[in-house]
Amino acid sequence: MVVVPSSAHADIARCAAPHLRDGQIVILHPGRTGGCLEFSKVLRDHGCRAEILLAEAETLIYASRSDGPAQVRIFSIKEAVPLAALPATRTPQVLEAIHEAYPQFIDGLSVLHTGLNNMGAIFHPALTLLNAGRIESTGGEFQFYIEGVTPSVARVLEALDRERVTVAAALGIRARTGLEWLKMAYDATGTTLYEAIHNQPGYRGIKAPSTLNHRYIFEDVPMSLVPIAALGQRYGVSVQAIDSIIRLACVIHQTDYWRRGRTLNKLGIEQLSVSELTAYVNEGVYE
Amino acid sequence: MVVVPSSAHADIARCAAPHLRDGQIVILHPGRTGGCLEFSKVLRDHGCRAEILLAEAETLIYASRSDGPAQVRIFSIKEAVPLAALPATRTPQVLEAIHEAYPQFIDGLSVLHTGLNNMGAIFHPALTLLNAGRIESTGGEFQFYIEGVTPSVARVLEALDRERVTVAAALGIRARTGLEWLKMAYDATGTTLYEAIHNQPGYRGIKAPSTLNHRYIFEDVPMSLVPIAALGQRYGVSVQAIDSIIRLACVIHQTDYWRRGRTLNKLGIEQLSVSELTAYVNEGVYE
Repeated sequence: MVVVPSSAHADIARCAAPHLRDGQIVILHPGRTGGCLEFSKVLRDHGCRAEILLAEAETLIYASRSDGPAQVRIFSIKEAVPLAALPATRTPQVLEAIHEAYPQFIDGLSVLHTGLNNMGAIFHPALTLLNAGRIESTGGEFQFYIEGVTPSVARVLEALDRERVTVAAALGIRARTGLEWLKMAYDATGTTLYEAIHNQPGYRGIKAPSTLNHRYIFEDVPMSLVPIAALGQRYGVSVQAIDSIIRLACVIHQTDYWRRGRTLNKLGIEQLSVSELTAYVNEGVYE
Repeated sequence: MVVVPSSAHADIARCAAPHLRDGQIVILHPGRTGGCLEFSKVLRDHGCRAEILLAEAETLIYASRSDGPAQVRIFSIKEAVPLAALPATRTPQVLEAIHEAYPQFIDGLSVLHTGLNNMGAIFHPALTLLNAGRIESTGGEFQFYIEGVTPSVARVLEALDRERVTVAAALGIRARTGLEWLKMAYDATGTTLYEAIHNQPGYRGIKAPSTLNHRYIFEDVPMSLVPIAALGQRYGVSVQAIDSIIRLACVIHQTDYWRRGRTLNKLGIEQLSVSELTAYVNEGVYE
């Protein structure tokens, strides 16, 4: 079970490559966008030929925060977390193996589904950037969702969300919209993201990050927004709003998140057509 | 003297076209970016053949705010405001004509100089968007420059400023950097825009706009950022940061500011090479 920021997945794969043995199961928990694809590519590149079962969860099963150097506080355990193996034909085997310890995991269809249903990619970086001045001048002393998501900010989130769902559609996948996800995860409803987010009592009390040097940017931009945008560019979907957020994050952190992020060549899928990519994630057929 | 938001310049030109007579002077005060170019194009398109003197100021000579429907409060009168005629060979004639009433106007070299030294284009939209959540959730109850310009926000302003200065350089023009402008206008110094802005006591007390439906977006994006970005794209300068701000403004206002803005064809300079553009603004030579 690999429970680390997704920026570390490639390193973990590099370290694990010589030691993995046939029949072992590796679960990226969570995978963010493209976790299994990148992990698998790094294993191949490092000569790992072991027949492992590789899977990723759509999100972490715990709602939790670190309380100290070796201490974690679990607020709640989610009721259902989608999980998919690469290839998806192996998902039942993985679920079967962990079912007793983790009955909450359910079939996530494919790693493209788990990766493209990544809602943090939509909410975190844009919400952080459109509140950049306030985060930095107050040290995050305001309610991130309740005060940070205003009608205009929500319109940007909706634009990003539309682009993500359209990228998924170009791959033949029906991703959940932000509104559907809020309904499913929290039973929060509304006709706009602004309404639905403000109708979710669980967001009350959640403070903003205290600094812009936060995983909402340095993890979510390269490991979530970059692969979604890269898929969009490759398969002909306009991702202008996502791209704007990536660029502003690059400027603010003075980092080339396109270079550091999960581009299609890092995922090993640069040359694949949609049907080849589908065959790869579903059945493991890889040219 | 045309003292209106620059979004109205084309309309004023359309209304004035049949009535202008040889020898009249029209001053756009200010022109923002491309004011004279657009005004002149609209006059031509509407059959105006009068030999007028057309000029634009780099900024409004007054630091002022409207106090009521027919009332204005002037905080101060600027000491020097660059002004340029189209073509620049006529600037001395315009300055001569208005010198007695307005001794503050000085030679602005050309309308590309006045247009590309437009500092509001750099400061206003980005500062507004990177504080979008705070503006909308507090109604602008914070100090726009002092609390809104944090180190990260200033880095974005610096990126936009670099792009603007580089666009100018591609046209053979040495534009003032934001730092140089702060030094010149307010004698405010610093090694970064963050420092220089915080070293300008005049920014203290200036509140943020109370809403995002403000000229800092609906005027400055189409009339200032769009023409700067369009010049960059035409003459091979990367304007990714400026473009990101334009796109986010489009999403937030659900308006296509590229379509509504001053693109090169609206300025009538779409087909011109750099040397043709230079000849046009300097000497009035237009193919």
